[in-house]
Order: sequence, then C-alpha cells, then structure tokens
Amino acid sequence: MIVRPPQHWFLRLFDWHGSVLVSIVFRLSLNLLMSVIALIGYPWFATLGIHLTTAPFSLIGVSIAIFLGFRNNASYARFIEARTLWGNLHIAQRSLLRQVKSVRGLRPEQVSDFIGLQLAFSWSLKHRLRHTDAQADLQRLLPAAWQPAVLGHPMPTSQIMLCMAEWLAQRRDEGLISDIVWQSMDENLNHFSACLGGCDRLAGTPIPFAYSLILHRTVYLFCTLLPFALVADLHLMTPLVSVFISYTFLSLESLAEELEDPFGTAPNHLPLDALCISLARNLQAMNNDFPLPAPHQPDAHFNLT
Amino acid sequence: MIVRPPQHWFLRLFDWHGSVLVSIVFRLSLNLLMSVIALIGYPWFATLGIHLTTAPFSLIGVSIAIFLGFRNNASYARFIEARTLWGNLHIAQRSLLRQVKSVRGLRPEQVSDFIGLQLAFSWSLKHRLRHTDAQADLQRLLPAAWQPAVLGHPMPTSQIMLCMAEWLAQRRDEGLISDIVWQSMDENLNHFSACLGGCDRLAGTPIPFAYSLILHRTVYLFCTLLPFALVADLHLMTPLVSVFISYTFLSLESLAEELEDPFGTAPNHLPLDALCISLARNLQAMNNDFPLPAPHQPDAHFNLT
Amino acid sequence: MIVRPPQHWFLRLFDWHGSVLVSIVFRLSLNLLMSVIALIGYPWFATLGIHLTTAPFSLIGVSIAIFLGFRNNASYARFIEARTLWGNLHIAQRSLLRQVKSVRGLRPEQVSDFIGLQLAFSWSLKHRLRHTDAQADLQRLLPAAWQPAVLGHPMPTSQIMLCMAEWLAQRRDEGLISDIVWQSMDENLNHFSACLGGCDRLAGTPIPFAYSLILHRTVYLFCTLLPFALVADLHLMTPLVSVFISYTFLSLESLAEELEDPFGTAPNHLPLDALCISLARNLQAMNNDFPLPAPHQPDAHFNLT
Amino acid sequence: MIVRPPQHWFLRLFDWHGSVLVSIVFRLSLNLLMSVIALIGYPWFATLGIHLTTAPFSLIGVSIAIFLGFRNNASYARFIEARTLWGNLHIAQRSLLRQVKSVRGLRPEQVSDFIGLQLAFSWSLKHRLRHTDAQADLQRLLPAAWQPAVLGHPMPTSQIMLCMAEWLAQRRDEGLISDIVWQSMDENLNHFSACLGGCDRLAGTPIPFAYSLILHRTVYLFCTLLPFALVADLHLMTPLVSVFISYTFLSLESLAEELEDPFGTAPNHLPLDALCISLARNLQAMNNDFPLPAPHQPDAHFNLT
Amino acid sequence: MIVRPPQHWFLRLFDWHGSVLVSIVFRLSLNLLMSVIALIGYPWFATLGIHLTTAPFSLIGVSIAIFLGFRNNASYARFIEARTLWGNLHIAQRSLLRQVKSVRGLRPEQVSDFIGLQLAFSWSLKHRLRHTDAQADLQRLLPAAWQPAVLGHPMPTSQIMLCMAEWLAQRRDEGLISDIVWQSMDENLNHFSACLGGCDRLAGTPIPFAYSLILHRTVYLFCTLLPFALVADLHLMTPLVSVFISYTFLSLESLAEELEDPFGTAPNHLPLDALCISLARNLQAMNNDFPLPAPHQPDAHFNLT
Repeated sequence: MIVRPPQHWFLRLFDWHGSVLVSIVFRLSLNLLMSVIALIGYPWFATLGIHLTTAPFSLIGVSIAIFLGFRNNASYARFIEARTLWGNLHIAQRSLLRQVKSVRGLRPEQVSDFIGLQLAFSWSLKHRLRHTDAQADLQRLLPAAWQPAVLGHPMPTSQIMLCMAEWLAQRRDEGLISDIVWQSMDENLNHFSACLGGCDRLAGTPIPFAYSLILHRTVYLFCTLLPFALVADLHLMTPLVSVFISYTFLSLESLAEELEDPFGTAPNHLPLDALCISLARNLQAMNNDFPLPAPHQPDAHFNLT
Repeated sequence: MIVRPPQHWFLRLFDWHGSVLVSIVFRLSLNLLMSVIALIGYPWFATLGIHLTTAPFSLIGVSIAIFLGFRNNASYARFIEARTLWGNLHIAQRSLLRQVKSVRGLRPEQVSDFIGLQLAFSWSLKHRLRHTDAQADLQRLLPAAWQPAVLGHPMPTSQIMLCMAEWLAQRRDEGLISDIVWQSMDENLNHFSACLGGCDRLAGTPIPFAYSLILHRTVYLFCTLLPFALVADLHLMTPLVSVFISYTFLSLESLAEELEDPFGTAPNHLPLDALCISLARNLQAMNNDFPLPAPHQPDAHFNLT
Repeated sequence: MIVRPPQHWFLRLFDWHGSVLVSIVFRLSLNLLMSVIALIGYPWFATLGIHLTTAPFSLIGVSIAIFLGFRNNASYARFIEARTLWGNLHIAQRSLLRQVKSVRGLRPEQVSDFIGLQLAFSWSLKHRLRHTDAQADLQRLLPAAWQPAVLGHPMPTSQIMLCMAEWLAQRRDEGLISDIVWQSMDENLNHFSACLGGCDRLAGTPIPFAYSLILHRTVYLFCTLLPFALVADLHLMTPLVSVFISYTFLSLESLAEELEDPFGTAPNHLPLDALCISLARNLQAMNNDFPLPAPHQPDAHFNLT
Repeated sequence: MIVRPPQHWFLRLFDWHGSVLVSIVFRLSLNLLMSVIALIGYPWFATLGIHLTTAPFSLIGVSIAIFLGFRNNASYARFIEARTLWGNLHIAQRSLLRQVKSVRGLRPEQVSDFIGLQLAFSWSLKHRLRHTDAQADLQRLLPAAWQPAVLGHPMPTSQIMLCMAEWLAQRRDEGLISDIVWQSMDENLNHFSACLGGCDRLAGTPIPFAYSLILHRTVYLFCTLLPFALVADLHLMTPLVSVFISYTFLSLESLAEELEDPFGTAPNHLPLDALCISLARNLQAMNNDFPLPAPHQPDAHFNLT
Repeated sequence: MIVRPPQHWFLRLFDWHGSVLVSIVFRLSLNLLMSVIALIGYPWFATLGIHLTTAPFSLIGVSIAIFLGFRNNASYARFIEARTLWGNLHIAQRSLLRQVKSVRGLRPEQVSDFIGLQLAFSWSLKHRLRHTDAQADLQRLLPAAWQPAVLGHPMPTSQIMLCMAEWLAQRRDEGLISDIVWQSMDENLNHFSACLGGCDRLAGTPIPFAYSLILHRTVYLFCTLLPFALVADLHLMTPLVSVFISYTFLSLESLAEELEDPFGTAPNHLPLDALCISLARNLQAMNNDFPLPAPHQPDAHFNLT
C-alpha cells in the first residue's frame, strides 16, 4: 500500500531521483567522451602499445560489483536503522501517552503539556540531526512552564527529556502515580534516550572513510578505462555499452553515498518533517485534540522532506 | 508441514503466481520480439556497425545479478519483518489474554469485552494497512460500551489501544489487579504499540525509490540488448536462451517489487485476512468460546488474502 | 564436540542424506540422459540450427548461483530460527522451574504437577507442528487434575499454557508467591507464548511460493540445457561435467527446499522427538526425579527424528 | 589492541594454523599428484577423448565460491554466537556480583560462597561442552556446603544454577533482600540459563549435515578435476595454479568445518580455559580477593585452549 | 549531516587514509616490479614453459573477491558493534543521570559525584581498551571519596561500576530512593556491564587467525602472479591494469584488517577520545555544569583519535 507518486512513470525518468542523477551526469558525460576518444583513437592503439581486452575487466568489474554490493548493503542498513529508530520513537511516544492517559486524576492541561513536551522532543531531534535552528519550533510547541529550562540551552533535546522525567516525578509527588507505574513510564523514557543516542551515533559515525574512498576510486577508474577495453570488440557500440555499464556502477555507488547519511534533505533521505507531523497527528488524535495538523505534502518532484 | 496447494504442480505452472507472471509476460514477449529482430537483422549488423559480444554482457549481467541478489534480500527482509510483527501481535494477544484469564473475580462478560477489543485491534490494523474501510468489522467486533470512543474516530487502531488501557485501569480501580499485575499486562500493551508502529513504518517507508528504479532500469535495458549480443554465437537458439535469461532476471526483479510491499492483496503478499481469523480462533478457543470461526480458505488459485 | 555418526564416511556416501539424494537422483539421471542425447546428436547440431556455447551459460549459471546463495541463506535462517525458538523454550522452562523450586512451602507433588504441565507443553507443541495426534502423550504426561481442561480441546498447546498460568495463580492465592515473584514467573510464561507463536509463524508462512518456484524452474531448465552447451567443447567429457554441475545446483536447491520447513521428519529437519526427551531429562534431573528417560537414539541411518 | 603472537610471521607460516593446514595437506598433495598426471598424460588426452576446458570450470568454480562464501558465513556466525554467549555469561556474572555486593548485612563468607558457585558454573559449563570430567574443578571451586547437591549429579551445571537460586532464596528468607531486589538478581540468573541453553543448542545442533557434505564433495571433486582442465592452457604452470586454487577452496572449506564446532580444542576454537580463568580474575578482583589467578598462557604454538 | 574534512578532496588523495595506503604501498610497488619483470621477460616465457592465461585468474580472482567480501563484512560488523556498544554506553549514562536527577532530596554535590563516577567509567574503559595508563584521568575525574577504592586497583573499570552501585545503595539507605526506583536504575547499571563485557569480548577475540591468514596469503599470491597472466594480452598495459586490480584487492584486505580491531588509534579506528569528551559534554550539560569541555578536534590529517 505504498503510495507511489501519481505522475506518469515516463515523465519522471529524467526528474525524480534528482540528486543521484545530477551527481553522476557529469561523470557519465566524461565516460561518453572517453568512449568517443577510444573510438577515434582505436586505429592508432597498436602503434601506441595500448592493448586492453575485456577479460581482465570482467575480473575487476565483477570483483568491484561484489564489494559494491556489500557496501550498498551497509549503507542501506544505516538508512533502515535510522528509520527504525524514528519508528521506535513513535512507538515509545504512543505507549507513554497511553500510560499517561490511563492515570486517574490528571487535569487535561497536564496531559496537553506532556504532549507538548513529546512533540518538542521529536522536533528538536530533527533540528539536531539536520543542524538547523530549533528555536521557532520549540517556542511553538513547548508549554510555557517548561520553556525556561530548554530555550537557549545548548542541548535542548536531552533537556526536554529531563523535563518529561520531571513531569513524571511531579505526578509521583502528587500521589497520582505509584512507583510501579512510574517505573513502566520511565522504561519508555529510556526508549526516548535510546532513539536519541542511536541517531547521534548514526549521524556522528560515517562508514569508515577509507571504505567509501576505495570503492569510489576503483569505480571511477574502472569506468574511465572501460571504453578502451571494449572498443576492440564493440567498435561503434562502445559508447552505448560503456555508458550502460558505467550508469549501473556509478548510480549505485552514488546512491550508497546518499543513503549513508540518512538525515539529510536529499530525495532519498528520511522525510523527518513528514515524520514529525505524522507523530503530532497521532498524539493529538489520541488526545481527541482536533483539528489535526495537515499531513506533510510532497513537493513538486514528489519528494518528502 | 507447510500445506502446499493440492492441485497438480504442472497445471499450476501457468496459473499460480499470477501477479509475477502477468507483470512480466509483456516484457518477455518484447524480449522475444527483440530476439526475432536480432535474428532477422543479423546479416546486416556488420554493415550497420552493430558489434555486440557476450563478454561485456557477462560482466554487466553478473554485476546486475549481484545487485539484484542484495536488493531481493532487502525486499524479502521487509516481508519477513512484516510477518514477524503480526506474529508478535499474536504472541502479545495470547499472553495478555492468559494474564487476564488468571485474574480472580472478573465477570465472564468483562473477559469477552476484552477479547472483542483485541480482535477489533487486529482487524482495524489490517484495514489501516490495506486502506480499506474498517467500519463494518469494528461494529461487528467492538463491545457496545467501547463503540462510541472508536467508531468515526480518524485513527481507530490507536483508539482501541487506549480502550484496552482503560479496561485495565478500570480493573485496577476495582481492585482486581494490583499495580504489579497491571505492569505485566501493560508491558504486553507496549508490544501492541510496537506492532502497530512497526507496520506503519514498513507501510510508510518503501525501499528508497532510486534503489528500485536503478535496478529496474538496468534489468530492462540488459534484457533488451541481450539478444543482439547473443545472436552472433547462438543464431536460431537466440530466442530460447534470451527469454530464459530474461525470465530469471525479470521475474526476480518483479517479485522483489511485490515483496517490498507486504500488506497488499497480491498472491505473494501477507494473508492478513487469514491471520486475523486465525487470531480470532486462538483467542476464542482460549476462552472456550465455541464454535470457532471457520479458518480462512484459499481462493480458486490457492491464494490466501 | 558435535557427535558425528560413527559409521565409515565412505559407506554413508550413498545412504546418509537420504531425502536430498533421493529427491534429485531422478533429475540427475535425466541430466545424464540429456548429456548422452547431446553427445549422440552433436554431429547433426549444425544442420538443426542448434548453436549453444558456454559463454551465455556462464552468465546465467553464475547469476542463478548468486540467487540460489541468497535463497539458501533464507532457508537456513528459517532452520536456525526454528532451532533457536526450541532452544528458548528449553531456557524458559529451566528458568521457570528454577524459580518454582526456590518458592518456600510448595508440596513435592505440586512441583511434579508443574513439571508435567511443562513437559506436556513441549510434546503438544511438537505434535501441533508435525500435525500428529497428541492424545497419547498428553494422557501420559498431564497430571490428572489438569487433564479435563486439555484433553479433547482443539488447541491443547495454548490450553496447557493457561493451566500453567492457573497453577501460578493458585499459588498466589495460597500466599506462597507474592505479586513480584509472580511477575518474574509470568515473564517466563511470556517466553513460552513467544516460542509457540514463533513456531506457528514459521510453520504457517513458507518462503513466498513464487521465490521458490522461480529458482526451481530456472535451475531445472539450466541443468536441462547445459549438456547441449558443453558438448561442443567437452565431447565425451560432457556427461561427467554436466552431472557434476547439475549435482551442485540441484542438491543445494533441494536442500533449501527441505530446510525451509524445519518441522518435518526428513533427515535434515529438526529432531523434535530428541528435543522433547532432552527437555524431559533436564527438568527431571533438576527435580532429582530419577531414573531419567533414555536419550533419544538415532535410527539405523544415524538420523534423529 | 589484539595481542598477536610475537614470533616472526614467516616462521609461523608452516606452524600456526596447525589443524587447518594438517587437515588439507594430504588433499593438496593429491592435487599436486593429479596435476603431474595431467601434465604427463596430456599428449594422450585427445586419443582418450578427454576434452576439458576452463570455461565450465569457471562457471562451477565461481558458483562453488558463492555457496562456500555463504556457508563460511554460517559457520563464522556460530563461532561469533558461541563467543557472545560466553561474553554474556561474563556480563551476567559481573552484574549479579555487583548486585550481591551492594546488599547490606551479608557476611564476607556468604559473598565468597556465591563467587564460588559462579565460578563452578562456568567451569562446569566448559566441561559439559568439551565432554571432559568436571569433578576435580568442581571440588576445587564449590563451597563445602553446596558440594553434596552437585557432585555426582548427572547434570551439575543446572544443579549449580539451582544452588545460586537457593542462595538468593536464603538471603530473602533472612530478610536481607526484598522481593524487588530478588527480582533484579533473578533476572540475571535467567541470563545464566540463556547462556547454558544457547551453548547446548550450538553444541547439539550442527549445521545440517547435508549442507556441509554437498559442499565438501563438490569442492573435492572440483579440485580433483581442475588440473585436467587447466593443463591445455597452462602446461608446466598447471601444478602451481592448480595447487593455488585448491589451497583457497580447501583451506576455507576446512576452516568452515572447524569454526562450525566452536567448543573444541583446536587452534581456531574458543579458548574456554582462558575464558574461565579471565572470569575468575574478574570476579575475585571485584571482591578484592587477591592474589588473582595468573592469566592463561598460550602454548608453544601461540594457541590458547 | 556527516562532517567531512573541509580540505580539497584531491589534496587528500595521497594523505588521508594514511595507514591503509602506507601499509600497501610497498606491496603495490612490488606488484609494479613484477609487472615490469613480466613485461621484460615475456619473449622468453615460451622457452621457460611459462604459460599463464587470464581465464584461471578470472576464476580465482572472482572467488577471492567473494570470500573477501564476506570477510570485509565480518570486520565491518565488528567496527559497527564496537561503535554501538559505546553508543549504548552513552544511552545508559544519559538515562541513568535522568533518573538520578528526578530523585527528590539529593544534594547537588551528590549528583556531581555521580557524574564524576560515570565519566571515570568511560575514560577508564577507553584506557583499558587501548592498554594505556588511566591513572591521570582517574585522578582528574573521580570524586575524592571514591578514589581509594579505584586508584591502584588492577581493574579500575569494574571497580567504578561497584562504586556506582554503592552510591545507589547509599541513597537507598538514606531513604531517598525506593526499591522500585533502585531497580530501574540498577537495570541501567546492567547496561554499563554489558558495554564493558561487549568491548572486552571484541578486544579479546579477533576474527579467527586462520581466516585472516588464508585470505591474506591468497590475495598476496594472486597479486604476485597476476602480471604474468596479463602480459600476454595486455603487453605495455600490464603494469597499469595489474596495479589497478592489486590496489582494489590489497586496499580492501588491508582495511578489513584495520577495522577488525576497532579500538586502536589508526585513522579508521573508533575515535574513543572524542567519544569520551562528547559524553562528558552531554552529562555536564544535563547538569547545567557550564562551561562544557571543548569538543575533541581532528588532527592535521582530519583524523579523530
């Protein structure tokens, strides 16, 4: 039931995965140029001592494909882990709100305050991961009583977590929740902490740079030399086949690089804006707090941010 | 002990995996057509400057197979995760009912009500994931007392979870369950939340579109060019071998696309209807609530929905 | 320290992995036949327009090997998960018995009753997974007081779990275990539930049928065509090499199909009988309940069931 | 910071991985012999109808490499899981001792007794996994009061776990630990149970025998036929290349077989002796129980047992 | 949002991944030398009986690439696990501090003391993993009251964990935290234990030495023989292609060896210094303990330690 963009598939061929295509279109043109050079220069190859055959390029090409397969897998695993961490945040937030709402004797504004803290947590996490300014969103979402502790603090995200812990402690002080109930809720706060820590880890520790660089280099060198190896067999077909093979390797290498950093704003990154709004819709609906904010809409290129 | 469809294997060859075969039969015909064109046009290839040999196609074919292997793995992992989430829901529901049934002093209709809420949860989740209307099932399953809070609400699934939490809180108010026992039951409600959140995550976040598209394109282009590369060696055998190779790549690519979205109603999707009924049978049997609903039956093509 | 069968390795070559060899021996003979046909017909190939070379078969063979590698991995993961679930059942049963045995004031027959319930749970799970009749084992193992609730019930396994929960609740009623201690024990009952649910999931959801079928077909077609491609190069060596290559592909494909369904009684399936008896030995030894039942013995072919 | 053996790398080439090299050296010699036979017999090949080329051997070789890669992965995963289970035992033992040491009012000899039980647990597990006699170690480590319950019992490992549970129950009886504190400690005992159960599972369930055997056979047959395929191209170079390729396949296949059973005493198995002593050092140091036992030393071949 | 080094990409080509390039530059030169020898000696090859073709090298090259792919995966998994363990330490430390800060009636210096213990734990773990001297950092970080128990002790890391447990027990004695609250905090101490145990496991158990050595040897032998196989086809192009292929294999093999041991101080190892300081910044900020220590800065080569 995944909602695919409604526009015609054909029209999107040259538009959709913007960043990947944009980032490799220059390299593909270069590859085309090399093919033409190879074609034109072919008659002089023997004189120049240039003997390149497909056999060694099969060996290195398949080897690079194997390494690239594993590396793509590693990048994709980062993307999936990032999404799962945000999913776990959704789960913990819904569970915690469910627990809060079954407490007897709470005033409605106390519940609203708590929802405000939860929302501020996810928005501040989004800003932290994208290195953007959280101030406006925090002012909008944070209940007045909790603003002084958070606004202007260098690490608002963990500060908001402390506020939620304090909110729970106050209810415990008021005798509304027992130690046992507090324990169950505190366990869900641990999950907030796990999500924050996990996202920090992914954002702060890329795939070892040497790993990316070795494959980046070998893919580029492979694509550059390829036309010279193909030209003896393929003559005029060289540009077509060479660009085709290069497209496969370059686009997958480029996508791997993009997925490696899932918290950016490129088309294949996680739509953190949409996730934050979806979370707000869920929590407000659980509190019958209508109207819900409108779902985040994809842009003209059908990309969510 | 997996129950395979009883019909003769041979008869099902052209019937069973409907969607996959249907979705590639057009492409396979196109491939056949290209083979015939390659066969007929072969005498003029040299004149036209068309020189395609198998060597570069081996290189690109094996590379695509490697990438496709990893991508299929990723799609299959989504299918397995979706099934595991529903399995976890079964586990949590049975555990929670076991806990409820060992509470002293509950009236039978209270237990039935709770079972009703549990069943409504799974049916509403099914409708949510398939974007179908939950109204009829909810009216059938929900106990009367809980209908007002759920029917007509934009997010019935999490609303039912709140109802279950409220049911527990009421029993706690009545003194039937202590805080400790409540904690153990609430822990199982967290698992409901995890299942809901996990399914939402899978349904809402496809494999990055660029990943699918790059492989989709390269597989198609590969199959289109293949006959022209094979014809020099294979002559009249070209159509046979070309369609064989294309079938392998196209069908696996197509299956990967199908498994990627496990909550649909195609033959290789999860049989959510059957899972919901199986759950109902389990819970009712635990409550000696006979007769059980009949197990969901596969359709004429041996597919469960 | 894995106990390998003591018989001479050479003698077992044609005996041991019965099912796999039996299931492919017909296909291997067919492949041999095709090789002979290819050999005999070779002189007429040119006339008949049959031109098959190894190059495209290398491409498709390696591609199939890649897909088969991933698919075998998926089957093996199912086998491992099934074994781990049964291992987790052992762990939960030993943990729960440890907790029960450290309760003060229990009468010895109460402990024996509880062990009887635990054993009945694993045997009834075995029968459920193999679709065999649990009646005799249940009558043998279940304590008299608990038989009415289980015997004749359509789902004895979850019924026994309810009995264990009831046993715990009775001890809580008697004041022998506090809510906290009950909570720790109940947590282990959740693990029983998880094991039951996990096994149900594996038994009820095969690898998507299309996945198996696509590879099944391509492997068979590949092996059928292979001799015709090899004969030009290998002449009299064709049968040897063709059967060798076919053996590798067909036996691994066949094993994957066998491992996919780990709860059967074929040689490479899980030895559920042996696991149930091992569990009984463990629990009885913990209760100093000698003599222990004899360990399950492998059959004449060194296979455990 | 992994401590590699200090001896010169070159000297260890023929010594270090004893078991692997020893187990394949006979097969490598056989391969060398086949190469020589192929070399000598080559002039008569045509007459004998022997036509073997590298192309089909590339196909089968790469296919076997793929299957072997997955199978090695599975063996390695068993090794890692075994090590992780022992690591988890370390973790649980340290956590449990930390909890015990923060109990008020314990007598020092009670703590020493408990440490004795913990150490006896790991040593008895080691003996269980290696099928060696635990008697001497148990007499050395077990506190006198607990010896009657364990010595001579057919399953000392789970018996010791019962003793630890009894120790906790006695402290609970004495009023030194509350039910809540008992619960936290009992949770760590569950981890002991999980470690014992996990190791039993690995030791008792090898990789399905057919899986090992299929690859074992195909690797051996491949290496045997290889020289006959290489000799036409490589002439005098046949022995070198053939032994090189065979070394790669045979040694990895042999290592996979070794890693599959991580609890043995071969060089690539887990050093259970060293792990037990390391555990003793950790626990005694936490109790300021000096002098600590000396760390286990590698043997003359730099292997730990 | 991963911060890549700002210096120009081109300038860093010969500088950045220091260790990997340095460790293979000698081998690459050797490979270049072999290429030149092969080129010069080529005319005499036939006389010397040297016949090496690319076909068998394709077979062995692709096979090695497959094995290397899996082995790199295993090394990378160790790197990721090490990072995740440190991430989990961050999570547990933040969660525990959150719990401590919501306790009523604590004096500020008690909280500071506890933070000091937490920081000392991570620094002492870092020193333990790198085999460096922890004394100076422990004196700087440990509160005076806890220094006697830790300084001079042979295992300061687990000693600090005992101190934290003792701190919690003292607060329990003072009546500030109930058993339930203690339980929640103690659960987070278990996570400290898990992190310590996990890191010890990774540091103490390398990938089985035979696994590394087999691939190390085969990669080296493959690269050494390669030029002799390529020269017949490539003539003057031999050095270029041979060094290119060797670079791919040698650099990935070398990186795998580096990643295998994630706790060192080479460029692709974990930046434990930076992680410790980041942890300090987080904990101090949660306690409004300004100014925060400055973030750790990369060195002139943009490497963090």
